[in-house]
Amino acid sequence: MSNVDLEALRSRVDEINVEILQLINERAGVVKEIGRVKEKQGVNRYDPLRERHMLDHLKENNDGPLPQSTVEHIFKEIFKTALELQVDDQKKALLV
Amino acid sequence: MSNVDLEALRSRVDEINVEILQLINERAGVVKEIGRVKEKQGVNRYDPLRERHMLDHLKENNDGPLPQSTVEHIFKEIFKTALELQVDDQKKALLV
Repeated sequence: MSNVDLEALRSRVDEINVEILQLINERAGVVKEIGRVKEKQGVNRYDPLRERHMLDHLKENNDGPLPQSTVEHIFKEIFKTALELQVDDQKKALLV
Repeated sequence: MSNVDLEALRSRVDEINVEILQLINERAGVVKEIGRVKEKQGVNRYDPLRERHMLDHLKENNDGPLPQSTVEHIFKEIFKTALELQVDDQKKALLV
């Protein structure tokens, strides 16, 4: 295999990176929206049971090569950051 | 906004989760392939400069709402796990 093939593989990684980026941003937008709905309903934003269900659903859908433990680890990071964004949003609202 | 809307938003999050899952698995597969090519070429697998370029490229493409620091954090986790998979792969090859 040549450097040309290596470059092609790297280009594919770059494309996938941007696709993941768009999806985690879209996800953060939807989670913010969920936060607004829950706030109106006076419900607590953080829902560990919902997080558990999402992780179970992901593991059922995981065909690898990433092991379940890695999938769980990456998604916990994604969940956490989306939640932090909700909190930031709430702080800004309080400052207005 | 009603519970029906909340359910619709949650369904969208579940869909996005699975799309992200498929992409991080596809990414891990391509990174494994890159590892094999580099091994044949006798090149070191871990390339901090390439990692830096990927992060710069992602930041250029980040339209939010996630802040750059969060994007960098999530992708460093994704990079790390794909690299760990390469190492596991190498260990298995050594055991055969």
